[in-house]
Amino acid sequence: MNRVGKQTFVFNNLPRIIGNYCLVGPKEGKGNFKEYFDKISEDDLFGQNSYEKAESRLIEQTISNAIENANLKPDEVEVMLSGDLMNQITSSSFAARTLDVPYIGLFGACSTMAETLIVGASLVDGGFVHNAVCATGSHFSSAEKQFRYPLELGTQRPPTSQWTVTGAGCTVLAPNKTGIAVSSATVGKVVDWGVTDANNMGAAMAPAAFETLVAHLKDTNREPDYYNLILTGDLGKLGSEILIDLMETKGYKLGKNYSDCGQMIFSNNQKTFMGGSGCGCGASILNGYVLKRMKLGHLKNVLFVATGALMSTVSAQQGESIPCIAHGVVLKGDKDNV
Amino acid sequence: MNRVGKQTFVFNNLPRIIGNYCLVGPKEGKGNFKEYFDKISEDDLFGQNSYEKAESRLIEQTISNAIENANLKPDEVEVMLSGDLMNQITSSSFAARTLDVPYIGLFGACSTMAETLIVGASLVDGGFVHNAVCATGSHFSSAEKQFRYPLELGTQRPPTSQWTVTGAGCTVLAPNKTGIAVSSATVGKVVDWGVTDANNMGAAMAPAAFETLVAHLKDTNREPDYYNLILTGDLGKLGSEILIDLMETKGYKLGKNYSDCGQMIFSNNQKTFMGGSGCGCGASILNGYVLKRMKLGHLKNVLFVATGALMSTVSAQQGESIPCIAHGVVLKGDKDNV
Repeated sequence: MNRVGKQTFVFNNLPRIIGNYCLVGPKEGKGNFKEYFDKISEDDLFGQNSYEKAESRLIEQTISNAIENANLKPDEVEVMLSGDLMNQITSSSFAARTLDVPYIGLFGACSTMAETLIVGASLVDGGFVHNAVCATGSHFSSAEKQFRYPLELGTQRPPTSQWTVTGAGCTVLAPNKTGIAVSSATVGKVVDWGVTDANNMGAAMAPAAFETLVAHLKDTNREPDYYNLILTGDLGKLGSEILIDLMETKGYKLGKNYSDCGQMIFSNNQKTFMGGSGCGCGASILNGYVLKRMKLGHLKNVLFVATGALMSTVSAQQGESIPCIAHGVVLKGDKDNV
Repeated sequence: MNRVGKQTFVFNNLPRIIGNYCLVGPKEGKGNFKEYFDKISEDDLFGQNSYEKAESRLIEQTISNAIENANLKPDEVEVMLSGDLMNQITSSSFAARTLDVPYIGLFGACSTMAETLIVGASLVDGGFVHNAVCATGSHFSSAEKQFRYPLELGTQRPPTSQWTVTGAGCTVLAPNKTGIAVSSATVGKVVDWGVTDANNMGAAMAPAAFETLVAHLKDTNREPDYYNLILTGDLGKLGSEILIDLMETKGYKLGKNYSDCGQMIFSNNQKTFMGGSGCGCGASILNGYVLKRMKLGHLKNVLFVATGALMSTVSAQQGESIPCIAHGVVLKGDKDNV
């Protein structure tokens, strides 16, 4: 079996990253990671007339560029795995319509980047495809409209809120001999500790990150310091502090090798309170900063734990708390200058 | 490679069906297939106080019973694959919260049953899990509220409309030696021929079924008469006639071995116009009628082509046509009384 412990897949054939790309909006392009993004768009509508269409175009452009970066032609793509925050993941499905490739739609909210990598690595490792395009993205304005309030209302944002990243990332996997590998992955369970505040996603999602991280370390019999970088999806400032505290209750110390995409992506003067969120947050940091540093050999063993809040506006209005999930993906570099 | 042609996965280790279950609502229990469903609920609210919660409870109960039918305990489940029609697939995610098992959420609209079987069979065949729970479901009242009009409006239904099935189905796959196998699968592309009428899903989805069916037959070098049964998801009466016509343009004749879940499920006096639809339509017919007949050896080679319409209300309001998809799954019986 290609599996250890209760929740962890092992990819013995080492599916490799043969191409990747990330594209972000103007605000993200002024943040802490501006030099790592492949492209920063000046136009947050991406040439479209609605934010939903903009989000779809953002994902489609990101995937197209990643396919090119992988030296593939669009008709050579054997499977596209994608999802997003929109109702019925229309951004991904409309991108798949334009790209005209075999398509499996996934939904894991902001954990989607990890989810697509898990399914993609499984399909490549199992020999079902010669390549798998794994992608996701989000848009601040479409997410606010769908999950909170239309921007036109000018609603005041509470101090625990996070800012949905306008951005997308795409990773192309293939059974190559060299390159960064996806070596294992831990599939999360749905965790819900009763948080109901849709403006405090970090607190809602931290327990899911905690449970998946503990499951991963137990399954693989590793300590946190095995990794040069443990990177959670988008817990933000508050959520990542909660995670550090929770890990201590189990005797695990998250030290300098721990970061959070949501906490990192914006600079302090960008008024995003707890930081970034959204599928595009983890996707752009992973495909921008992390993979670039891994290619240079500055990082060798990386654990990417993307977190997602699985509620809808209807479930919230019906008084439900926020069910969350986190999936872990282990990336292994083939250079070592750490 | 475990793959033939452009779009088809081959499961050489033959993941087997070790358990299955289907549960439907009262109207479906008065239809053509009443003796094949495992359970018919008298209460279309499934003991809940909203139709969204009812749908989640329906999926959760179906999965619980399938797990029991597979002789597994809930904590032995290694992955649950599920999706549904609700925004952010909350019915599946809330069911996953209660079931407390590793979870990968999928979205393929009414194609979801096939989508979960494809990913599940890949994970079992690739040796990443010892079992995979593949499930989906839908509810008439929650779907009408979300995609069309609230029931309280009493809106007149046009003659091309279909009736979303209140029902769910679950199939449990494992690397067994005996039992019905999932032997191959064809992953669909998004197909959109420009239909914009959300009350004519059959016409919108027929081209997707057509393209996937042709791709499957070409990839596997088979003719339609290889199968005892080719079963499309829920094209309904009009959509399945369109599919028969489209197949003829490519020289393929769909004969008596062709049926459609949407066309079959309700009886003529149930006033459902073009028939049934929704994730639960294909899921309940597959896990009810088809698997029961395969276990008896009345069917040996079955091709299940589930179709899905990937639009949202927002995409429809923004003037977009309906992008559709179809995924094909080949089931192989281990008894032969055909």
